Amino acid sequence: MNYKEIIEEVYQKIKSGDNKGKLATYIPELAKVNPNTFAVHLTTIDKQEYGIGEYEHKFSIQSIAKVLSLSLAFKIIGEKLWERLGVEPSGSSFDSLAVLELNNGIPRNPLVNAGAMVICDVLITHLTNPKEEFLEFIRDISGIHDLNYSAVIANSEKSAGYRNIALCNFIKSYGNILNSPEEVLDFYFSICSLEMSCRELSKTFLYLANDDFRTASNKKVLTMSQAKRINAIMQTCGFYNESGEFAFKVGLPGKSGVGGGIMAVHPNNYCIAVWSPKLNEKGNSYRGMKFLELFTTKTESSIF
Amino acid sequence: MNYKEIIEEVYQKIKSGDNKGKLATYIPELAKVNPNTFAVHLTTIDKQEYGIGEYEHKFSIQSIAKVLSLSLAFKIIGEKLWERLGVEPSGSSFDSLAVLELNNGIPRNPLVNAGAMVICDVLITHLTNPKEEFLEFIRDISGIHDLNYSAVIANSEKSAGYRNIALCNFIKSYGNILNSPEEVLDFYFSICSLEMSCRELSKTFLYLANDDFRTASNKKVLTMSQAKRINAIMQTCGFYNESGEFAFKVGLPGKSGVGGGIMAVHPNNYCIAVWSPKLNEKGNSYRGMKFLELFTTKTESSIF
Amino acid sequence: MNYKEIIEEVYQKIKSGDNKGKLATYIPELAKVNPNTFAVHLTTIDKQEYGIGEYEHKFSIQSIAKVLSLSLAFKIIGEKLWERLGVEPSGSSFDSLAVLELNNGIPRNPLVNAGAMVICDVLITHLTNPKEEFLEFIRDISGIHDLNYSAVIANSEKSAGYRNIALCNFIKSYGNILNSPEEVLDFYFSICSLEMSCRELSKTFLYLANDDFRTASNKKVLTMSQAKRINAIMQTCGFYNESGEFAFKVGLPGKSGVGGGIMAVHPNNYCIAVWSPKLNEKGNSYRGMKFLELFTTKTESSIF
Amino acid sequence: MNYKEIIEEVYQKIKSGDNKGKLATYIPELAKVNPNTFAVHLTTIDKQEYGIGEYEHKFSIQSIAKVLSLSLAFKIIGEKLWERLGVEPSGSSFDSLAVLELNNGIPRNPLVNAGAMVICDVLITHLTNPKEEFLEFIRDISGIHDLNYSAVIANSEKSAGYRNIALCNFIKSYGNILNSPEEVLDFYFSICSLEMSCRELSKTFLYLANDDFRTASNKKVLTMSQAKRINAIMQTCGFYNESGEFAFKVGLPGKSGVGGGIMAVHPNNYCIAVWSPKLNEKGNSYRGMKFLELFTTKTESSIF
Repeated sequence: MNYKEIIEEVYQKIKSGDNKGKLATYIPELAKVNPNTFAVHLTTIDKQEYGIGEYEHKFSIQSIAKVLSLSLAFKIIGEKLWERLGVEPSGSSFDSLAVLELNNGIPRNPLVNAGAMVICDVLITHLTNPKEEFLEFIRDISGIHDLNYSAVIANSEKSAGYRNIALCNFIKSYGNILNSPEEVLDFYFSICSLEMSCRELSKTFLYLANDDFRTASNKKVLTMSQAKRINAIMQTCGFYNESGEFAFKVGLPGKSGVGGGIMAVHPNNYCIAVWSPKLNEKGNSYRGMKFLELFTTKTESSIF
Repeated sequence: MNYKEIIEEVYQKIKSGDNKGKLATYIPELAKVNPNTFAVHLTTIDKQEYGIGEYEHKFSIQSIAKVLSLSLAFKIIGEKLWERLGVEPSGSSFDSLAVLELNNGIPRNPLVNAGAMVICDVLITHLTNPKEEFLEFIRDISGIHDLNYSAVIANSEKSAGYRNIALCNFIKSYGNILNSPEEVLDFYFSICSLEMSCRELSKTFLYLANDDFRTASNKKVLTMSQAKRINAIMQTCGFYNESGEFAFKVGLPGKSGVGGGIMAVHPNNYCIAVWSPKLNEKGNSYRGMKFLELFTTKTESSIF
Repeated sequence: MNYKEIIEEVYQKIKSGDNKGKLATYIPELAKVNPNTFAVHLTTIDKQEYGIGEYEHKFSIQSIAKVLSLSLAFKIIGEKLWERLGVEPSGSSFDSLAVLELNNGIPRNPLVNAGAMVICDVLITHLTNPKEEFLEFIRDISGIHDLNYSAVIANSEKSAGYRNIALCNFIKSYGNILNSPEEVLDFYFSICSLEMSCRELSKTFLYLANDDFRTASNKKVLTMSQAKRINAIMQTCGFYNESGEFAFKVGLPGKSGVGGGIMAVHPNNYCIAVWSPKLNEKGNSYRGMKFLELFTTKTESSIF
Repeated sequence: MNYKEIIEEVYQKIKSGDNKGKLATYIPELAKVNPNTFAVHLTTIDKQEYGIGEYEHKFSIQSIAKVLSLSLAFKIIGEKLWERLGVEPSGSSFDSLAVLELNNGIPRNPLVNAGAMVICDVLITHLTNPKEEFLEFIRDISGIHDLNYSAVIANSEKSAGYRNIALCNFIKSYGNILNSPEEVLDFYFSICSLEMSCRELSKTFLYLANDDFRTASNKKVLTMSQAKRINAIMQTCGFYNESGEFAFKVGLPGKSGVGGGIMAVHPNNYCIAVWSPKLNEKGNSYRGMKFLELFTTKTESSIF
């Protein structure tokens, strides 16, 4: 498959089209990015790479990082994780408290905010220095030694994060957060503040596409079964209440972030990352969704 | 891959384990089947077959038939279909009216009861003799000339179908049913009353696994893109509020029915059907779910 | 208290103001009334009367009739009634199915549509000829011998009553309707089709204001405790999700109907009826609400 | 009316019956009270008093204090208050976040927790020293000079108040809290920590029963219209999702607290306070509800 040509063709086509939607504004720092940025990068499991646009430019990966924290928690405590949260799509927006109330504080899945907070809580319980050890974990996967949290973004989010504070205290009120909400939120906001480029993203998440993936220090990240399970969760829950639409139109497991990034995986083939900051009504990158739909159609690489 | 051996091994293992759950009792006729029946049949896209247990025994396929009516409606009116219903998992039970109220009469997807009723409505509008033409459509796909509705099952369901009558009239009140609720319900109950064996199911649904599939009369059923889209919907919505769990544990697009049947598809590989009538709490076959989980683990054939 | 003068003053004031809102259009017949009609009639417990506008003109009392059917059912089976429905405000619209789903088919109160259907079901079970006996009951209370159902209105409602059909079948699916939904709905639509003038309304509902009230045949309608309880239900649930507002602004127990009528009771003092067909957003008479607010302010007759 | 005799008779009858329910345990300090305490005190508008049991014993009045903060805010900004919250019963529990989500951060009424927080926010905005000035306000109404917050109770509540922290931040996320959530919660917990005896309660709330009520410093608390409106809100919303039941069985406007206190008002007649700490399933005093039901039946003093 000549991915390079198709990427270029689809990129030009989408770039020449409209760029609808809005920047995420609830986090002040995110509102400052250039809305016209548009980058794509693909890495195959045999390490071939194709990039276009600002694919070396770092941006705030936001919720995409939830897949990394989920991976670490799953690696540490295994299937016991599912005693504290589900694997079902929520059928509502990513920060709904109503759904949580209906389920007595058990988040529907690890990719909605509530679920990602429970994951943070698990990591805090099992790690001595959660922030440092999480950084080490993803530096080892990605091989990027300067990978880091953005204090500016984390603080920006903290200053406006009333809804997330509400969510975390709400789960705590049901007893499904074991540590203090402040500590959990601090870790949560740090994780969401990670900055990576499309190139870094598509290389990092190869561990979900390739059963033989080894980290910089030559370790396996997850068992094959665990990686498949995370892909399954991304497929059904990775795009908030547009998850069905993404499966329908794109047909790949993936995860989006309000920074405008989308990462998607074709098991046994490749990992692709797209970045375009303007978001559609459901909170997913407007051009990112369009690019991936056309890309998997042209490459016939939907997993379905 | 030696499917035969693995099917036999897994079948024996599950058969020797527990058989929890309950028969569907809300439809009087379904409560009469033998709860110990257990059948499996797999057909590969190159027409190899493996069956075990009562795989030639016909049973009520119930909601599995919704995939067939969806296919016909999608074939007839194409993407316009999505003006009247969504493709998102509902996050709640298959016959919830609350979700429908929240969405002003637009069903979340074509595989919940509400969505399947809108599909019936579309077919009634576009076909001259809906029941006959639908039968012809699936007889041609399956090559089974005596495939038929069960009047006994349809009447049994009609006599106790207050919730479905409620659903259909509720959608009508929002203007999203164009024909009379009586006519829509009559067609809906007929479709759900179809009876097929596991062997027939696994052969019939090959059209979703094989791009080159041809019907008995040598026609294509759907375009490749349409088939992939239906698989995507099955993956995110095929098992009610256990869809995430099914993706997580089994990793195949599929559809279950309250008759205890499950049909699942491995694109470009095979279609498999399982039947065991006792249902778990979410309304899916208890042993069917267990069988498929172990089967895709042993064959490493999750699509993720 | 000189009610006559205040009624005239307030009537003129409201009449000269705006007449916002919309006619109920979901029932074709109701859309045909003159939107400018405006009538008021008050009867004191010592039988003094004051009327203004078209107070002798009959109109469709719609949901106001639910208080009459509730009274008869309460009279017949007493407190056992509350095993099948609640007395709490619903916090949502009069025909919500979502609330019913949350409460497993137990209507929140007897004045939402669902509750009134359960009341109809109770009456069908306990009466030999429900329609005739109900008519006799209200003819005896009101002393109006030609009081009758409107077949035109009942049929008009039946032809468009998909949501009510949905509601009734939904309750039936939970087992909280014992008779056939068709029979219950037929009775329900008949009751809602009753036609009365403001004068007839204010005289009829005196039984809720006056402990010593006697019917034409010299019977007590309810015990004092029962009458007080029905007033309490009207106060908290009589105006759909505007009940709190009505208590807040008017301060009387009462009941509205989509025909634009409102009946309100001042215990131990009077009963008043207002009719103005244009409805506000919550489905209550726009000018009726305004009239009563100003009237109880001027007469200082809020019960609070 | 000989209130004294009836109070004694009903008190003995209820005391000799069962004492079901549970102490509020979510606030550690409340779990320490003697569950058998049972006190009643009534004050008529002409200042006659009748008490029985531990009616001079102070207890944590909790949510009853919400009526006092509502009164002060209503006095200060008048009808503008209703731009920020409603007057409708919520149809759900006192601390539901789901209802708030449905209404975009506008609390249903001032007596649910969310509404009381908005009231606190209003007071913080309009007062220089909110805690001190609120204390002055209620000391002047009650004539009790040592009336005070309980730091122990406030801290106890703060230490376990995750759900309230969630609520306050949730409203803030909708922009309907103008000050910092910390400040609002600190004031909110202080208000709920007020301690009063039944005698003090029944004397304090006379301002809602008596149009001519004057404070210690000879001021009017509210206009007659405002007092009536607060009574109306108490009637429809004062007992969480048991408000309808309280109207139905007792028939007086009132307010309960999780400390086991209930205060009720008979306009133009009396104010009564009851205290018995064990709560029924809806969070209202078990014996308090029973006492008031029997008391208004015997005295025929339901307002309906």
